[in-house]
Amino acid sequence: MTQTIIVTGGTGFIGFHAVTELVARGHKVIVPTSRPISESVSGAHYVACDLTDPAARQKLISEAGADTLLHIAWRAAVSGLWGAPENTDWLQASLALGRDFLDAGGKRIALCGSCGEYDWTSGICIEDVTPLRPNTIYGTAKVSVLHGLSAMCQVAGASFVAGRPFFIYGPREHESRLTAYVINSLLAGDEAACSHGMQLRDYSHVADVGRGMAALAASDLTGEYNIGTGQAVRVKDVILEIASAVGRNDLVKLGAREAPAFEPPLIVADMSKTRASGLDWAPRFSLETGVADTIDWFRAQL
Amino acid sequence: MTQTIIVTGGTGFIGFHAVTELVARGHKVIVPTSRPISESVSGAHYVACDLTDPAARQKLISEAGADTLLHIAWRAAVSGLWGAPENTDWLQASLALGRDFLDAGGKRIALCGSCGEYDWTSGICIEDVTPLRPNTIYGTAKVSVLHGLSAMCQVAGASFVAGRPFFIYGPREHESRLTAYVINSLLAGDEAACSHGMQLRDYSHVADVGRGMAALAASDLTGEYNIGTGQAVRVKDVILEIASAVGRNDLVKLGAREAPAFEPPLIVADMSKTRASGLDWAPRFSLETGVADTIDWFRAQL
Repeated sequence: MTQTIIVTGGTGFIGFHAVTELVARGHKVIVPTSRPISESVSGAHYVACDLTDPAARQKLISEAGADTLLHIAWRAAVSGLWGAPENTDWLQASLALGRDFLDAGGKRIALCGSCGEYDWTSGICIEDVTPLRPNTIYGTAKVSVLHGLSAMCQVAGASFVAGRPFFIYGPREHESRLTAYVINSLLAGDEAACSHGMQLRDYSHVADVGRGMAALAASDLTGEYNIGTGQAVRVKDVILEIASAVGRNDLVKLGAREAPAFEPPLIVADMSKTRASGLDWAPRFSLETGVADTIDWFRAQL
Repeated sequence: MTQTIIVTGGTGFIGFHAVTELVARGHKVIVPTSRPISESVSGAHYVACDLTDPAARQKLISEAGADTLLHIAWRAAVSGLWGAPENTDWLQASLALGRDFLDAGGKRIALCGSCGEYDWTSGICIEDVTPLRPNTIYGTAKVSVLHGLSAMCQVAGASFVAGRPFFIYGPREHESRLTAYVINSLLAGDEAACSHGMQLRDYSHVADVGRGMAALAASDLTGEYNIGTGQAVRVKDVILEIASAVGRNDLVKLGAREAPAFEPPLIVADMSKTRASGLDWAPRFSLETGVADTIDWFRAQL
């Protein structure tokens, strides 16, 4: 069934791919944006709107006539995300947005959550089993939004689904993040100072995550679903894959910087629930093809 | 150390006792109220204020100059609490209140949570162990507030503590709730139609809960603490205790109404963390003395 879907954060890292996928599936997609659009998706409708402004938000919702809200937007700057004060601004803005959307008759909300909602001491993260016990401000704010929007949808008789991405890399990644930093350093011929890299993480290419969020929004699933690969890779193997692809293994300095104070040894998605759900989605990128695609994109920016 | 404490819900079921306790401990207590005050606590400061009105709320906070916020207020009508739409109004109002308090320089927030935040299939509810997996709108909204205020306090460098009451009875209880219904029925000489009553619950007298919330607000503890008794009693034993005290066992009809569709067999607080915390509080009422006190209060209203 064709839906009319508002995608917040639709010009961002994950959202760009979600919009691309939803348009490709034939849905009408409305993208509020408060920044200049560097790359637009043909067929999507872009509307200038500051989502933190109640009047502007309500006007957008009223004019869009959307049945579904895919909420991906969060604060713009990714650097220092886990502890940033802006997280609580987006917490309140997210709940206000959801409330306005439901008050206007919205029928479905899909939320982009985070693996940071889980208790990271668990290692393997299983929906409806692993406790949500975040140890960052970002994760704590996301858990608040998850429950807040869930309660609001229950009250309104709307459906609610949350996707939970894990670790994400790919084109348009913020330059301060690991893969972007390593790629840019190596392409520039500079050394890349990394931690020991022994941590095991579930890494997804951002296009797969965006497609997964789009598939969830377009489905009739409710509840929480991991959007990962189910495969744990060592961080150093991601770094060395980049180094091999660029041909500059000599520039990688593992152990040159300390790992963060709290650095769980393993964070990986259990993908059983998502796979069994009938969701029309599966990751397309392997680590090799994903890293190659990402290097291509960064090289094209030089 | 003497604190200046705003107590929301300070004229209500739990809040009345929290205010009484905080005044007795020598703190300056400010109670916003949007309803006529039937029973005031000598020494507390009552200020007319609708907490859901941003301007009124901010004026109250600005004039109070409080260091601590004890947030007990929730929607007024208790009937149908678990599924009521107003839960999401109080969710947003609670976060807005917390934000305003912290923006004005507030140093500590104490939240009155609920055992409804826990996964009730667990039976024994242990802080930091039992997952928060509410299956009611009320519990879901409370989990959202818990994480939202926690994130805000982290951002502001303020301390945050949450008390988690279990099942509560006592003076001023809403007439639709179990013990009030049974007491009023029996005092009137009417039959009391009850469910099978085999459910095991942790029942506290409301004065103990209010005193517990006051002690938490006045302490320097952070995190989540159960405020219960640690003892599971059968619901029918509460009912029969009332019947014995009133002397009308003949009017109690166990099994005369169906139990709710989802009625967990056991919900009890593990009190280990609270007891080991050094919190200056312990329950004073036994089931017998608590029931007798409650009957006395309802009899005095006749």
